[in-house]
Amino acid sequence: MKPGDSLMKHYLQFKDLRAEEYAYLFERARIIKQRFKNYEKYQPLTDRTLAMIFEKASTRTRVSFEAGMYQMGGSVVHLTTGDSQLGRAEPVEDSARVISRMCDLVMIRTYEQAKLVAFAAHSRVPVINGLTNEYHPCQILADILTFIEHRGSMQGKVVAWVGDGNNMANTWLQAAEILGFTVHVSTPGGYEVDPQVAGITGTGCYKVFKDPMAACRGADLVTTDVWTSMGYEAENEARQKAFADWCVDAEMMAVAKPDALFMHCLPAHRGEEVSAEVIDGPQSVVWDEAENRLHAQKALMEYLLLGRIG
Amino acid sequence: MKPGDSLMKHYLQFKDLRAEEYAYLFERARIIKQRFKNYEKYQPLTDRTLAMIFEKASTRTRVSFEAGMYQMGGSVVHLTTGDSQLGRAEPVEDSARVISRMCDLVMIRTYEQAKLVAFAAHSRVPVINGLTNEYHPCQILADILTFIEHRGSMQGKVVAWVGDGNNMANTWLQAAEILGFTVHVSTPGGYEVDPQVAGITGTGCYKVFKDPMAACRGADLVTTDVWTSMGYEAENEARQKAFADWCVDAEMMAVAKPDALFMHCLPAHRGEEVSAEVIDGPQSVVWDEAENRLHAQKALMEYLLLGRIG
Amino acid sequence: MKPGDSLMKHYLQFKDLRAEEYAYLFERARIIKQRFKNYEKYQPLTDRTLAMIFEKASTRTRVSFEAGMYQMGGSVVHLTTGDSQLGRAEPVEDSARVISRMCDLVMIRTYEQAKLVAFAAHSRVPVINGLTNEYHPCQILADILTFIEHRGSMQGKVVAWVGDGNNMANTWLQAAEILGFTVHVSTPGGYEVDPQVAGITGTGCYKVFKDPMAACRGADLVTTDVWTSMGYEAENEARQKAFADWCVDAEMMAVAKPDALFMHCLPAHRGEEVSAEVIDGPQSVVWDEAENRLHAQKALMEYLLLGRIG
Repeated sequence: MKPGDSLMKHYLQFKDLRAEEYAYLFERARIIKQRFKNYEKYQPLTDRTLAMIFEKASTRTRVSFEAGMYQMGGSVVHLTTGDSQLGRAEPVEDSARVISRMCDLVMIRTYEQAKLVAFAAHSRVPVINGLTNEYHPCQILADILTFIEHRGSMQGKVVAWVGDGNNMANTWLQAAEILGFTVHVSTPGGYEVDPQVAGITGTGCYKVFKDPMAACRGADLVTTDVWTSMGYEAENEARQKAFADWCVDAEMMAVAKPDALFMHCLPAHRGEEVSAEVIDGPQSVVWDEAENRLHAQKALMEYLLLGRIG
Repeated sequence: MKPGDSLMKHYLQFKDLRAEEYAYLFERARIIKQRFKNYEKYQPLTDRTLAMIFEKASTRTRVSFEAGMYQMGGSVVHLTTGDSQLGRAEPVEDSARVISRMCDLVMIRTYEQAKLVAFAAHSRVPVINGLTNEYHPCQILADILTFIEHRGSMQGKVVAWVGDGNNMANTWLQAAEILGFTVHVSTPGGYEVDPQVAGITGTGCYKVFKDPMAACRGADLVTTDVWTSMGYEAENEARQKAFADWCVDAEMMAVAKPDALFMHCLPAHRGEEVSAEVIDGPQSVVWDEAENRLHAQKALMEYLLLGRIG
Repeated sequence: MKPGDSLMKHYLQFKDLRAEEYAYLFERARIIKQRFKNYEKYQPLTDRTLAMIFEKASTRTRVSFEAGMYQMGGSVVHLTTGDSQLGRAEPVEDSARVISRMCDLVMIRTYEQAKLVAFAAHSRVPVINGLTNEYHPCQILADILTFIEHRGSMQGKVVAWVGDGNNMANTWLQAAEILGFTVHVSTPGGYEVDPQVAGITGTGCYKVFKDPMAACRGADLVTTDVWTSMGYEAENEARQKAFADWCVDAEMMAVAKPDALFMHCLPAHRGEEVSAEVIDGPQSVVWDEAENRLHAQKALMEYLLLGRIG
């Protein structure tokens, strides 16, 4: 695909791709991962440059996108609001025009989804959401890849989301609608998921539970996130109180399916949103999940830049 | 060329190269750009590393040098005063000695030209000016490449410089003297170009106009820059007043040649140094200009590292 | 070697490798350097990514590891506590698990050795000490390579360490024990080397001198470091007084062997720990020493990732 190609796709939220595209991506991720583990060179992105723009701190997103691009032969320019002018006095539209003239792909981690959308609207090259206040599609891509590796297709499965009705929760809902599974959502009062913000078309893909134990009952996957995401630090004290009963512990895992998995997008605060026993226990696949950011995003970048292979 | 080669050249100001070298560079930039657009691999700089040292923020310079180096097969080490010790307690001469033992090329964005000159004097490898208070030769290289693409040779042409008598203005004067065109300079009182600082040998290459409209009359290219460049933020309020009449607007463009181009090195402040109508209008080539940083600098780096090709 | 290989080695302190491994490394460094100087491509680390984690500022370590990795065909992800979450709320063990799932090698510059050890204990891939409060093995690797280039084997030689009983001094002691030379240590009172911290098994490898002149007498190599290393800035005033007599000057060099070398890991403060006359004089090999970080570390990274070549 060339810059400005009419088939060019952005990946701004999970629903930007269709079910059959996801089936393709998960299969490509599997192949790319396997080859990489066998030290088979696969460098289709020589000459291609990814610009990464971070307005929030990052470890996993930094390392996974950057290492992923390098492993496929490409390169990365890493911009932060600290050492660039993106946050200062330049309209995001102008930054988009300039950066997309020099690079082949852009990944942005920012606050408002609207800023990402504005950037994409003026970009000649594909733009990837590397986390916004509203969505985190690359994480869910990795999570579902991890589930598939351990348990097969997610179709018809139940995911228990325990905790904050945040960008992760919103993205799980979009994924459930597209891929045909159900999310059991349990959040404290005042932190509910907003289906408008989540951007789903119906309500068939999720059920709301006041009691987190009820949400976990029969679940194939139990997952949570920190109580206070980046950007919400001012609310930390209130959140610590509100979320006290939303800690995923052994009791919650006990009511899920016997072979239920536990996931967490990390970093984790043991003793807050998850007990050490659970995250460090046998049902936890959090390290595979973290590693799969690398492989899932390699498949995504390959697809956005080169289209379907073979 | 090997480090320490007697033919080694630095690029510290525009006049460090001669007219025939520029003719070569603009032609190489054209070829490199064309091949790149056609996805023809051209990686002559495998094994070579560019050290970039930033003491001021940057988007365009960062991305263009970094992506340019990657696209030619090379690599980049990006140092800022924040995460290195260049700004702390180490003489610039020592930093030059060390860094030029490890890398093949150095680009520096700093305040005083004198610091750049001191670095170059102790460097074993070529040093490039990535912007100083006095000069910005890489930007003018891209600007002239852009003019040539749209209108052909600059010889005998008229460039109207409207605004601050800054590093861009100085560099335009040097370019005019070397490449045989004329600059019409109009600045507010107190912000005049200083021919001593500009480092030109005569005064035949430019004319001074009190009235910016007069400077634009009959120009082939109208160009400007922000009123308050980096490093001068403390003067911002005084500058806003002084420069109020030096906004490039439709009226100014109307007295230039009918096919006059508008350029701006960006970031731009619409409504200050340029009206939205002009920068977003049909005569503006600012996005091509930004993109050409990439291609012009690739030609420059190739020349400094490998000499003339073929 | 594959991640998690039972033969996997970390390089956390100098004594992590044996004398015969050092003999191999110095010979490999010589070959790698020679080939590189001749522009012979040697890129055995294509596909491999080095994660660099900096909790202290760095120029030499940054540039040498980063350029070294690029020159061998590999890539680098550069993380600081500023733009990552390593310093915030995530246990170092979790960071180790995640990063070592995505990268092939990790270099860490941090404060406490214990943090480095904790990271290594949970890493699937080799970890390199890029400087801790306790040790700086990569610097000594480069120093000994430099000595060998200029004077041959260090066996039986005398190294005079003048100044702070710091990470460099500790590492010289470990090196002396493994490679069979003697360190004459002279520090001000209160800044002595602690053989427990240095982690040496006996006291045969070093002699303590109150008088720095006595330490230098007959030495083959005189070396020192800044009086106030990073992390000890609060003690600066007290150190300036305490170290006043520990400046390596021409008088000290005059009592060393006539062909004695002077080394300094840089940055240097002329007039404090070393006189300008010495560091800029004919016995000083500080620029070769700085450059050899590059070549020594390339040999080290090759060894940790690929084992013995040929």
